[in-house]
Amino acid sequence: MDTLIKPLQDLIEKFRSLDGVGKKSAMRMAFSVLDMENSDAFDFAQAILDAKTKIGICTVCQNLSSEEICPICSSETRDHSVICVVEDYQAVLALEKVKEFSGVYHVLHGTISPMKGIGPDKLKIKELLNRINNEDIKEVIVATNPTVEGEATAMYISKILKPLEIKVTRIANGLPVGADLEYADEVTLYRALLGRRDI
Amino acid sequence: MDTLIKPLQDLIEKFRSLDGVGKKSAMRMAFSVLDMENSDAFDFAQAILDAKTKIGICTVCQNLSSEEICPICSSETRDHSVICVVEDYQAVLALEKVKEFSGVYHVLHGTISPMKGIGPDKLKIKELLNRINNEDIKEVIVATNPTVEGEATAMYISKILKPLEIKVTRIANGLPVGADLEYADEVTLYRALLGRRDI
Repeated sequence: MDTLIKPLQDLIEKFRSLDGVGKKSAMRMAFSVLDMENSDAFDFAQAILDAKTKIGICTVCQNLSSEEICPICSSETRDHSVICVVEDYQAVLALEKVKEFSGVYHVLHGTISPMKGIGPDKLKIKELLNRINNEDIKEVIVATNPTVEGEATAMYISKILKPLEIKVTRIANGLPVGADLEYADEVTLYRALLGRRDI
Repeated sequence: MDTLIKPLQDLIEKFRSLDGVGKKSAMRMAFSVLDMENSDAFDFAQAILDAKTKIGICTVCQNLSSEEICPICSSETRDHSVICVVEDYQAVLALEKVKEFSGVYHVLHGTISPMKGIGPDKLKIKELLNRINNEDIKEVIVATNPTVEGEATAMYISKILKPLEIKVTRIANGLPVGADLEYADEVTLYRALLGRRDI
């Protein structure tokens, strides 16, 4: 026996194609599937298909949604005049956990990245402009990640929104709570100083 | 938005049910599926179903196989009078990699483990006895893992094979190649001393 049996090899390759899964993990997962009850394996396969077919994009905020308009965009208790612009669905989840933001979101589905060949046209920026033109928006909070690409995207958005005379803000940079100055990088420290406030 | 959207939540739970997959990893994998092409996701689902439906057990050695008799058991170049008894398919893969063993295997599908409620009757031990009774077997090498359960299983097998007057051997314990005595545990060192050989 030189190699793995074909259906097992195939399944291992599928697991390996997932983000962050190496050879050993993929094998362990494939064996987990073999150890499953047939019905559980069927449910697993079905869950993959369901995730692809039932999850779409909210026509308003472009966030992942199983409905045409997501629960946040259709909520009457949220402030629809404040839009928080984020990179992805995970960012929405993170911000929703804080339970402090009562506005709505706009999901860009990525950041501008010349290295990966992603220009502004590949992001949901024109959908954002549409919303701003057609709705009564008071503030746009740009909450892309404080990475090179995230900052570039934030800059780009602030520039195209300037002519529209809307308040555009950026989430603060600084030391995370519980951090130690000793271990903070220079850029973070510099920005923490720059963003200092009266106490 | 209090929780994840349902189809995504379902998929994350399926990934979490796999051996060694935590919450964060499961989320990352689920998002990988969402990022896939539809056809890739379909192939993934199909690979899961194929693994469950196309992989059976070799009627001779009980190893995983996509044929009724696995390539090792049907091979004419292997020594069918020497059976190496292992816990699982992974052990067969590991031993095959060494390319030194030319006999055949017998896969127990586990070890005796009173803690998990696994008695000898739940393992493929009677199938092993059948083989020994019906074939011309000269040696049985017990290569279960050197764990408590593996040793107990090895002991059990050697006991039931004793009346049949077959040579039963156990793979050696000792220091792994490249190891350091300083970091070896006492039991391994003790067994390494016990198994010492003339040089």
